[in-house]
Amino acid sequence: MRAYLDCFPCFLQQALRAARIATRDEEKIKRVLDAVGSLLKDIPLDSTPPLTGRLIYQKVSEITGNPDPYREIKKKSTERALALYPCLKSRVAASSDRLLMAIRMAIAGNVIDFGANWDFDLNADIDDILEKDFAIGDYDAFKDRLAAARDIVYLGDNAGECVFDRILIEELGRPVTYAVRDAPIINDATKEDAMQAGIADVATLVSSGTDAPGTILETCRADFLQTYRRADLVISKGQGNYEALSPADGPVFFMLKVKCPVIGDHLGVAEGGIVLQAAEGL
Amino acid sequence: MRAYLDCFPCFLQQALRAARIATRDEEKIKRVLDAVGSLLKDIPLDSTPPLTGRLIYQKVSEITGNPDPYREIKKKSTERALALYPCLKSRVAASSDRLLMAIRMAIAGNVIDFGANWDFDLNADIDDILEKDFAIGDYDAFKDRLAAARDIVYLGDNAGECVFDRILIEELGRPVTYAVRDAPIINDATKEDAMQAGIADVATLVSSGTDAPGTILETCRADFLQTYRRADLVISKGQGNYEALSPADGPVFFMLKVKCPVIGDHLGVAEGGIVLQAAEGL
Repeated sequence: MRAYLDCFPCFLQQALRAARIATRDEEKIKRVLDAVGSLLKDIPLDSTPPLTGRLIYQKVSEITGNPDPYREIKKKSTERALALYPCLKSRVAASSDRLLMAIRMAIAGNVIDFGANWDFDLNADIDDILEKDFAIGDYDAFKDRLAAARDIVYLGDNAGECVFDRILIEELGRPVTYAVRDAPIINDATKEDAMQAGIADVATLVSSGTDAPGTILETCRADFLQTYRRADLVISKGQGNYEALSPADGPVFFMLKVKCPVIGDHLGVAEGGIVLQAAEGL
Repeated sequence: MRAYLDCFPCFLQQALRAARIATRDEEKIKRVLDAVGSLLKDIPLDSTPPLTGRLIYQKVSEITGNPDPYREIKKKSTERALALYPCLKSRVAASSDRLLMAIRMAIAGNVIDFGANWDFDLNADIDDILEKDFAIGDYDAFKDRLAAARDIVYLGDNAGECVFDRILIEELGRPVTYAVRDAPIINDATKEDAMQAGIADVATLVSSGTDAPGTILETCRADFLQTYRRADLVISKGQGNYEALSPADGPVFFMLKVKCPVIGDHLGVAEGGIVLQAAEGL
């Protein structure tokens, strides 16, 4: 997905938020804003937002001297999600359509996003998502694709959310390769976060090689790309991966909660909407 | 008032909004964002926001080739306010405290602000403001100062709002000099807008000389400064004038509705709060 004009003020807003988490030094935070402001002119409208996200967070790390500002937040998000795990599992078990409920869970986990939205009430958000209609719901196509799938690639998004992904993986009944970011970027899951969430117990855990907040294929490792190209089903979680991959030409299903008006307009869905979208041609 | 870190993403947001009003050419709008992003590094935290507002709107005009993007919007705001005038007048006439009601009216007129807030429901906002408690209400001090005042300077804010200011001026019962911006800047009132609102019938209409969206004294004309310094009561309307003048050392009363969280924090007032604040020492 390309960047829209509305993304540019938001880039600065994201820089401010991350810089504040990285440091309390107002002078350094101002320098982050200056640097990010100055780099906007080098970002064409046809570049994907996660590519810019990467540049922004590089500036934040460089100027504040903090390479992983969200370290503690990520750890706590995962702990919080793990505490919910038994309850979420029993809700899946009690459901008449376990797979659909697990998909809803995985999307509910996508509310844990300190990059896009700072305030959220986890329990209320989960209850809301488990009940509400899909704004885009290609569930039948997903079930068909899953029935025939042998190699599934699952693109993780945020730390904490991994716990919810684990619930869906446990319902898929197929071998899954779970890919995370190669280096800390915002609150996105790295191997360390996915391990904490127990992903390694249910899937093959790999790094996609990217250090962007979205799976931009051009920035991924060759061995991951091989796995990705071979997959007959790709589950792409969250806005960052959507921005990086859409329009996708492979067997990709996007699962996300719409948390920004630009993505909402792009998808034709209201903010807050939940989406299970098959890539075109599936 | 100094700029805060949160002002910087907002500067870019304001640039985007104004550029969209000035042109539909996406490429030009992107160039405005690039230019405004690049100038952030030259804006120190101790500069007042209207000084930056001036730079932003200069870029908008320069790049889009539109020197007065809000021309039509301003004209319509004034027409809309003029249509309400008879009704507002009769509400003042029916009030047990005409002066207080007229002050509330003047503050209600401050909701007409396309610079800070795009969407507003004028009638609902007016009703709300006419009823609600002042977050800061130095009404007694204002009355005392008014009783002894001979030269009143009234600093106008937005077009449209002038009609509401006229209602207050008509209740003051003293000679008033009404000052507006020297050149078009956002939707701020210029002489043309104040004329349309009928200000010239009730006050001496002058230009302050500034082309910033706030009365920054350093940018004002010498003859206006003389009038300003001589005044024994200054009524300062709106956020822009507050940002430009606070902390004021003269006999200034600020009247505004708080429309941004930064000013709210600075004043210790929630967003949406209405303020009649005497400058310190009054």
